[in-house]
Amino acid sequence: MSNITPAFVIEKKRNGDVLSDSEIQGFIQGITSGEIPDYQATALLMAIFFKGMTLDETVSLTRAMLESGDRFDLSGIPGVKIDKHSTGGVGDKVSLILAPLAVACGLKVPMMAGRGLGHSGGTIDKLEAIPGFNTALSPEEFKRILKDVGTAIIGQTSKIAPADKKLYALRDVTATVPCVPLIVGSILSKKLAEGTEGLILDVKVGNGAFMQNLGAARKLAKTLVQVAKKLGLNCRAALTQMDQPLGCAVGNTLEVIESIAVLRNEKPFDSSCIDLKELTIHLCAQMLEMGRIVKKHQDGRKLALAKLQDGSAWEVFRQMVKAQGGLVSSIDDPSQLPISKRIVEWKSSKKGYIKSINTKAIGELLIEMGGGRKVTSQKIDFGTGFVFKKKVGSSVSPKETLVITYLPENISDGKVKELEAQFFRSIVISAGRHAAPKLILDAGIK
Amino acid sequence: MSNITPAFVIEKKRNGDVLSDSEIQGFIQGITSGEIPDYQATALLMAIFFKGMTLDETVSLTRAMLESGDRFDLSGIPGVKIDKHSTGGVGDKVSLILAPLAVACGLKVPMMAGRGLGHSGGTIDKLEAIPGFNTALSPEEFKRILKDVGTAIIGQTSKIAPADKKLYALRDVTATVPCVPLIVGSILSKKLAEGTEGLILDVKVGNGAFMQNLGAARKLAKTLVQVAKKLGLNCRAALTQMDQPLGCAVGNTLEVIESIAVLRNEKPFDSSCIDLKELTIHLCAQMLEMGRIVKKHQDGRKLALAKLQDGSAWEVFRQMVKAQGGLVSSIDDPSQLPISKRIVEWKSSKKGYIKSINTKAIGELLIEMGGGRKVTSQKIDFGTGFVFKKKVGSSVSPKETLVITYLPENISDGKVKELEAQFFRSIVISAGRHAAPKLILDAGIK
Repeated sequence: MSNITPAFVIEKKRNGDVLSDSEIQGFIQGITSGEIPDYQATALLMAIFFKGMTLDETVSLTRAMLESGDRFDLSGIPGVKIDKHSTGGVGDKVSLILAPLAVACGLKVPMMAGRGLGHSGGTIDKLEAIPGFNTALSPEEFKRILKDVGTAIIGQTSKIAPADKKLYALRDVTATVPCVPLIVGSILSKKLAEGTEGLILDVKVGNGAFMQNLGAARKLAKTLVQVAKKLGLNCRAALTQMDQPLGCAVGNTLEVIESIAVLRNEKPFDSSCIDLKELTIHLCAQMLEMGRIVKKHQDGRKLALAKLQDGSAWEVFRQMVKAQGGLVSSIDDPSQLPISKRIVEWKSSKKGYIKSINTKAIGELLIEMGGGRKVTSQKIDFGTGFVFKKKVGSSVSPKETLVITYLPENISDGKVKELEAQFFRSIVISAGRHAAPKLILDAGIK
Repeated sequence: MSNITPAFVIEKKRNGDVLSDSEIQGFIQGITSGEIPDYQATALLMAIFFKGMTLDETVSLTRAMLESGDRFDLSGIPGVKIDKHSTGGVGDKVSLILAPLAVACGLKVPMMAGRGLGHSGGTIDKLEAIPGFNTALSPEEFKRILKDVGTAIIGQTSKIAPADKKLYALRDVTATVPCVPLIVGSILSKKLAEGTEGLILDVKVGNGAFMQNLGAARKLAKTLVQVAKKLGLNCRAALTQMDQPLGCAVGNTLEVIESIAVLRNEKPFDSSCIDLKELTIHLCAQMLEMGRIVKKHQDGRKLALAKLQDGSAWEVFRQMVKAQGGLVSSIDDPSQLPISKRIVEWKSSKKGYIKSINTKAIGELLIEMGGGRKVTSQKIDFGTGFVFKKKVGSSVSPKETLVITYLPENISDGKVKELEAQFFRSIVISAGRHAAPKLILDAGIK
């Protein structure tokens, strides 16, 4: 009579004991095959939430999740493959710019990305705002485009880390999302499966991130890097600020438009939202260092900037869009992208400085406006969103526009009033000056 | 948009916050209807395991579980109705004797009892060792027999506290059984549903009980009494010792035979296992005090003893067996009850005193011998079990019989050796004298 029943494993973790590699593997296999029912999975997840996991347990968990599905073999594709992953925020469209930029600088970027999650947006949803863009490539198409263009961005397939897919859906409805070992297993199992050699992690911290405090974010970043290395994946992490939307656009089409502007050296929406460009350059330089394209960070920055300025990053983006079935004319002329015609400007009623923006609330407002999902099956309204004219630290005068809002076209006036009130509740304006928050809180955790 | 989603309730409890009555009620209703899936239920159970519940939350939980199903109305039945519940142990056949005895003393005893659970036996299984005994009475039959005979013992029906039925099955496989508020909700929801006015609780403590330590058992007992009272149920609890099997018989038919012997003033198995009789008398006296049949505990003891000695308790037992379809001739002549013919005696190899008995291991051995269930669907072999000739504190000599074992009839000799070895691993004999453990650790928690 074997004692290693699922109930035994749950009890062991409940007691705070360390699970063995075979116990973790057996449990994950059982979840994947369906032999272990969901109700035992969630009990274990909650026990892990309370009792945590050692580094070795987290490695076992990540490996078991990886081995629950297929793994791409990219060894036949020449070049150094480095991917980037962000833990999620509001207005974070870095991947759209960074993937083609890193390719322009000499790397290959195989990227398996996600959809919007909670209040945060997702790269896959943003790319799908481009008419025809296909993120559901076959492994063969993915490899072919990666080889030919240098980067391809796809969604998680059902064959990649199916254990993660199942566990993630369960965590989402059982209050077990914010838990370091579970986050690590979820992120790294997919990144290991996609076949990348290196990974730069952008761990977000702040009121628009899943980790609101620096200590917790640092712990997550360090665990991610340690576990990745134990599993043979070259990895670095940066801690970056998410106390306001990144850049000025929030919303799927608007973020594509902003990304295009950065890639083309244009001023997005006539605004000077330099944080987006700065973060992209920083992460690109880290990737170039990891991939030994450059020796020093400064050289990486210079190279990245040059490849933005000479239009080669933009050209890689165009090729990727074309290869993945997207309508290239719609990115060449972004006014063709799906965008709401119902536009309002919300203006300040007082004089002062933007003290804070409740960034999570902005993400939730976008969901209310159809730009994100309340339930998984929901279709996204790509054309809604915000363009921020003011960010934290900006001075404002009465009647000055804070934000340009792209409303859902069929919304009632009453609902608009409600949204406006919600927006103003998330912005604090005070009389005293405020500095713009520091963007990069920790440049490189190795 | 209501925030009271199941995930919100789980998160609130996970954070250690106090759930409101309506949150608890909504969750339990959702579990009962199936609207809330099992995987959210088990996540909440594990969060409750770690964060506990206040008295008010436990009251809400118990009430919600009660209201998930039907409730018997016994108000039309004359007499004071008092039931007894034990938290479970090994060899605990008290209910079989106590129910008819309390009736003989002037009470009514409506009893909804359970089946074996983990290593502990169950009253329903024991009664079913009597050929024909029907524990699945309709509410009408239950009430009729309660009125005519004074007591009826039935299993939990699917209409009584269905939330408990569902939660219990989930707790059993998710390591969330040993948790005070969940135990309280489970016990009291059923007892409130059966319609009793009073309840005496026998909370077991020791190596054969679910609560192995006195402090934890006392906390459970106090919470049970407080919650019961808040829900209008007169309640007392005793803490009693379960560091060895109660009485001398362990196993379904053997425990019926022992109960019959006590009811008939005979010496069961030629042994003097006085702890069973003593505990029964004590609990009966408590019930008589609660029901105001007597004013003082001592008077209750006297009355109970008299009703055992004059044969009236035995006569009530016979009537109950008859009314519930049991074969009366089989209890009049217990040699007719189903019993194994494959009997061995396991003897001491050394001289000394019994220092300890691993009582849980004895209960698990019985399951190995078919006398309990490994899975819910399993049929019980009523005729297997143990008759202890020695208990803690007894002196033993080499070759003296420790236990008479009624083996499964079709067992291999190799398996018998294995069982014997397991038995001896659970008995410690030492040279020095040992006192018999104290039976009643706390006489009455009100």
